[in-house]
Amino acid sequence: MDELQLSRVRAFAPATVANVACGFDIFGFAVDSPGDEATVYVDASVPAGEARIASVKGDGGRLPVEVSRNTAGVAVLALLEALKAADRPCRFGLSIELEKGMPLGSGLGSSAASAAAAVFAANRLLGEPFAEERLVAFAAEGERAACGSAHADNAGPALLGGFVLVRAYEPLDLVRIPVPTELWCALVHPHAEVSTKEARDALPAQYPRATLVAQSGNSAGLVAGLFASDYGLIGRSLVDLVAEPWRARLIPRYAQVKEAALVSGALGAGISGSGPSVFALVRGRDTAERCTQAMKAAVESGGLGCDARVSRIMGTGARVLTEE
Amino acid sequence: MDELQLSRVRAFAPATVANVACGFDIFGFAVDSPGDEATVYVDASVPAGEARIASVKGDGGRLPVEVSRNTAGVAVLALLEALKAADRPCRFGLSIELEKGMPLGSGLGSSAASAAAAVFAANRLLGEPFAEERLVAFAAEGERAACGSAHADNAGPALLGGFVLVRAYEPLDLVRIPVPTELWCALVHPHAEVSTKEARDALPAQYPRATLVAQSGNSAGLVAGLFASDYGLIGRSLVDLVAEPWRARLIPRYAQVKEAALVSGALGAGISGSGPSVFALVRGRDTAERCTQAMKAAVESGGLGCDARVSRIMGTGARVLTEE
Repeated sequence: MDELQLSRVRAFAPATVANVACGFDIFGFAVDSPGDEATVYVDASVPAGEARIASVKGDGGRLPVEVSRNTAGVAVLALLEALKAADRPCRFGLSIELEKGMPLGSGLGSSAASAAAAVFAANRLLGEPFAEERLVAFAAEGERAACGSAHADNAGPALLGGFVLVRAYEPLDLVRIPVPTELWCALVHPHAEVSTKEARDALPAQYPRATLVAQSGNSAGLVAGLFASDYGLIGRSLVDLVAEPWRARLIPRYAQVKEAALVSGALGAGISGSGPSVFALVRGRDTAERCTQAMKAAVESGGLGCDARVSRIMGTGARVLTEE
Repeated sequence: MDELQLSRVRAFAPATVANVACGFDIFGFAVDSPGDEATVYVDASVPAGEARIASVKGDGGRLPVEVSRNTAGVAVLALLEALKAADRPCRFGLSIELEKGMPLGSGLGSSAASAAAAVFAANRLLGEPFAEERLVAFAAEGERAACGSAHADNAGPALLGGFVLVRAYEPLDLVRIPVPTELWCALVHPHAEVSTKEARDALPAQYPRATLVAQSGNSAGLVAGLFASDYGLIGRSLVDLVAEPWRARLIPRYAQVKEAALVSGALGAGISGSGPSVFALVRGRDTAERCTQAMKAAVESGGLGCDARVSRIMGTGARVLTEE
């Protein structure tokens, strides 16, 4: 890594829906938008092998700019550390500019999108020393900085796109799951905020064996439904016994929003990540539009503002926007 | 059901491997042999709508012949009860002859095979009032008589054949999972006995959240590997965090048998049902033969006798042998 072909890379990584009802910490998928942008560039004022956060926009000044406390910073530091461990230390200093395109604490994988965009840009800038799968591990380190847990169910699809299974964490084992062509996502983001850490703390440390059996049955069922394009099976599998019973109360009008989705024809619905966003999986774009509007109305009838989106489930993941 | 076309049906149901390492209570598959046979016939000496066990062979006199305590009897009674509930009560009395083709307490789904063969024969005799999926529920009731729990991970594949996911129990939701053509099973049955009830009692009532996450990741991973014919993923997914840590000690030389399978090229190995049988999933018949021999040798070096078999994973389930 004596010379670089590039000096500056700007990358995008999308919002993601993690957990997907029956796959706590193991399932996630990318949506088309929104997403975060990160620009990484060679900066002679930064010591070789180090990184700093040059700027953060779109966060209302709330994110830490200290590199070791910023999710994107931590992810890039993990990448630089891995280069060093491989005896290929980076001979350049890097600066990172972040542009948030989605709200914090929305349950849409905001921190993962920042981390994914930043490591994707850094990896590209440095000549792509790492495969995308490895970048997920770096981004997951960024997640640890954000919420205390290195989960990869947002970072995986934010980088790889599509629907991703995190089969295991040690070592990280990611599996891309095919998605039936008519499967769409209805997504609403009530204008409230849920702290990922608080949402995790709300969960029990132990679960009854019956819950474990039911959860593994549903997660296996969802994968089978996705592979077989069995929409009925997909719907029946979208049962959340692990998080929803404890997190529903953190989310404004959750029961009404979920009910609105189901009544409007959704296959199933659940909390996106740790909320307050709520997703539904739907067969067909028209039904997805209808579900989205019904879910949005259910939020707004409680007096809260709400963004709503319809998205494919097979979106691309992180990608370069510009490079020079 | 005023007249019957048949008066006597003899049916076979195969042995099954349940749990399959990462799918406690949700996964099972049928093997080619051994299996149990049941003959069900119209018996004028039995009151209409009732059933009795006429004889049991091959069990060394150990199985109860009281119909309400025999797994096959309970299954047939559940079928008769369902007919009654549907206002189509059976106008005949039935007798059941059981012929055990496999040992009790072997971990090969012995009780499920008897129940499956009996309900399959009874259903055929009565003009097939129920679909196979429904028969699984009746056979699962037989399992409850045998071990106190109405699990369906043996009864499902014993009736349907192939690899079966029990997505949920209430109501029962069975999913057939396709199996890659080169996938084989190596199976050994050490000549020891494990009580299913004792094996269930050995398990904790609660599991840490991390175990739940890992188990659902592996069960989703195994389904993905089976659908995608990804043998590596199948192997990596065969991790048992729920039963093996507590049941391994109940099984003679378990660690050595498992090690022998892995060293001989198995993708993965685990306890078949509640043991003491041990299975391995293997790519290719030749490797399966080699694994089976190595596993058998590992059992026998401990001074215990052992049966060993190689089987496909896509075997047929219950079937009629003769009818008149």
